[in-house]
Amino acid sequence: MVTRVPVARPDAIRRHNLGLLLGQVHRHGELTRAELTQRLHLSRSTTGALVAELTERGLLDERVPSGGQRAGRPSHVVGPRRDGPYAVAVDVDITHITTAAVGIGGHVLARHVVTTADGPCRPEAAAAFVVQASEALSAQIDPGAWPVGMGVSVPGTVTRHTGMVEFAPNLNWRHESFGDMLSAVAPRGLPVTIGNDADLAVLAEHLRGNARDCTDVIYLMGRIGVGAGIIVDGRPLHGHEGHAGEVGHNVVDASGPLCHCGKRGCVETYIGDSALLTLAGREALPTPENVAAVFADAAAGDQRAAAAVRSVAAALGRTVASLVNVLDPQRVLLGGSLGGVLDFAKDDIAATLEAYSMSATRQSVHLEAPGLGDDSSLLGAAELAFADLLVDPVGSH
Amino acid sequence: MVTRVPVARPDAIRRHNLGLLLGQVHRHGELTRAELTQRLHLSRSTTGALVAELTERGLLDERVPSGGQRAGRPSHVVGPRRDGPYAVAVDVDITHITTAAVGIGGHVLARHVVTTADGPCRPEAAAAFVVQASEALSAQIDPGAWPVGMGVSVPGTVTRHTGMVEFAPNLNWRHESFGDMLSAVAPRGLPVTIGNDADLAVLAEHLRGNARDCTDVIYLMGRIGVGAGIIVDGRPLHGHEGHAGEVGHNVVDASGPLCHCGKRGCVETYIGDSALLTLAGREALPTPENVAAVFADAAAGDQRAAAAVRSVAAALGRTVASLVNVLDPQRVLLGGSLGGVLDFAKDDIAATLEAYSMSATRQSVHLEAPGLGDDSSLLGAAELAFADLLVDPVGSH
Repeated sequence: MVTRVPVARPDAIRRHNLGLLLGQVHRHGELTRAELTQRLHLSRSTTGALVAELTERGLLDERVPSGGQRAGRPSHVVGPRRDGPYAVAVDVDITHITTAAVGIGGHVLARHVVTTADGPCRPEAAAAFVVQASEALSAQIDPGAWPVGMGVSVPGTVTRHTGMVEFAPNLNWRHESFGDMLSAVAPRGLPVTIGNDADLAVLAEHLRGNARDCTDVIYLMGRIGVGAGIIVDGRPLHGHEGHAGEVGHNVVDASGPLCHCGKRGCVETYIGDSALLTLAGREALPTPENVAAVFADAAAGDQRAAAAVRSVAAALGRTVASLVNVLDPQRVLLGGSLGGVLDFAKDDIAATLEAYSMSATRQSVHLEAPGLGDDSSLLGAAELAFADLLVDPVGSH
Repeated sequence: MVTRVPVARPDAIRRHNLGLLLGQVHRHGELTRAELTQRLHLSRSTTGALVAELTERGLLDERVPSGGQRAGRPSHVVGPRRDGPYAVAVDVDITHITTAAVGIGGHVLARHVVTTADGPCRPEAAAAFVVQASEALSAQIDPGAWPVGMGVSVPGTVTRHTGMVEFAPNLNWRHESFGDMLSAVAPRGLPVTIGNDADLAVLAEHLRGNARDCTDVIYLMGRIGVGAGIIVDGRPLHGHEGHAGEVGHNVVDASGPLCHCGKRGCVETYIGDSALLTLAGREALPTPENVAAVFADAAAGDQRAAAAVRSVAAALGRTVASLVNVLDPQRVLLGGSLGGVLDFAKDDIAATLEAYSMSATRQSVHLEAPGLGDDSSLLGAAELAFADLLVDPVGSH
């Protein structure tokens, strides 16, 4: 018979410091003990004790760096470990569902993509795909690694505390309790947290992407739908019910093209993937591949494709201008297909941004592509899964 | 010869608590010692000492309440005093400049209004008006009262830390160092702080008006121009350079009416005072009186006036919808002339708000008039002047 000796509840300060130290490695990657000591304003011995505890608990690894022989005793390097904790991160998009194992530091250890070829799938089917994928992933990574939670990105409005997807028009989901569905089937009783794709994208870009040094940022995500993730004064703007950033159905012109939402002239009808394909004269499904083909053809000299991208760029500049006037950010990241528009037609975006924004608000704004490419939402979802562990590495598992 | 004995620098905690206590009275009005003790989580004796110090320094008054005889020893009531500190609050509007002495608690002790009959005046003239008015005010209030600062509301984009008015289109001011102008002539070397009218309005409404219990609020101010003051998660949304909320020149329809800014179809061309007058068929200057006449005539049954107000209401609902989609607030306050539109045509606003906002974001939003009426910006300006005093009542004067 094994006797379990009750462990005394560790003191709050130590647990807080364990979280800070783990968070430093999560944010900045491998760090020496000396760097950690300096960043945390702790004594060398306290840092040493914290590192020892995190190593013992299997959360971090400590090793003497190989290679470059420097004079004196080499400082140990503290970093993530292969058999450590990982997040099950999920990005539910219209045409495919990506599930990934993401380790401390935001490293994608393995990923699994399902293409939902016949159009968007129902939430029950999506949940089944995710469970299947997370089982497959666990076979691909170090057998000692263990999942700490599941974070899920959805292209729609989400009420985070209930896990309810209120409205995801391009998935055709309305008031779906996707969080509960996933919780019911998640392996090993993993806690599940759901967020909006653009909200999660800006979170990840602020942590480790192209908004690292910014306090006021907009991530405008354009795929089939369009949404914004917003950071104000260094903090996420969620809104009262967590539904902020729903810019895709703001009406640009009440006599504009009919939108699937029933209104006319929504932002999506000008800068969404379907608009781009229509402008390019293509009767193709708005898959990432078909959209990428328009950008490739535009770059190769196809006049109609080029004109389509430039038309989207002009409308995009105007959309950004309206957001800039309201929010006065220092940076706007253009993600999803909008990154392709930025690549090909930055000047066209800049021209309408200049024409449609107030001089005071446009002075300091910069347009950029996301630093994490197409993985912003996925890595933001991983952050949802890691959140509890980083607050209290001892208590949460 | 008077010998000044240097006073020992009071300790930080006491000063902090003095600020908190003064802030309680400022926010909630007269309070008993018992209420203050409870609210501040302090001992009775500490509260007593703080009250004694604030009374001694002439910042608050303590008295035994008259009237209602209750059993036992009556609790002293702590409140503002007539010969206490006051803010010089200034609201620069297009057609008039209001200067007021505002006491602790947000009470307007006296006010002085100058009508700038021949159209908006230059900043130098405005500064001269303000100085003249503040001298006149000091003669109208208790001779023992003393000003702690000057706070100024301007209908334009303001860079607060430089006191620069970047652009106030309806005053025709561009890049005017209005803060420096006022500082140079302000009586008794009063510190001057400038803010945007809508930003200050939402500040005051959040402190003591109709947004007291809200964490996420938009104050949409519509007079000749249109701007928004925004509170997100309980904190003002200023933006990176302090220019957030400039919604008046967001374009609703690129082929709409010509705006004085050079673009077509700006929000102001649909819901500003000039739009209302034009729709009502009146070739009158957009003064508050002429605008009020349209509302009065609409209420009295004038069909054309009523149709004009309802047309503005419909456009207003759409403008609010776009902001609601992006910010997901719990309340939207409609100030300036928009309050008159709300009075007469709330259903028309609600109808387009319903049609143009996402279901998730509109569920919880309520439309209301400002609780402080036309004084929101003025009282917000007073808060700018009081800010230092409330942080450290001992150090700032």
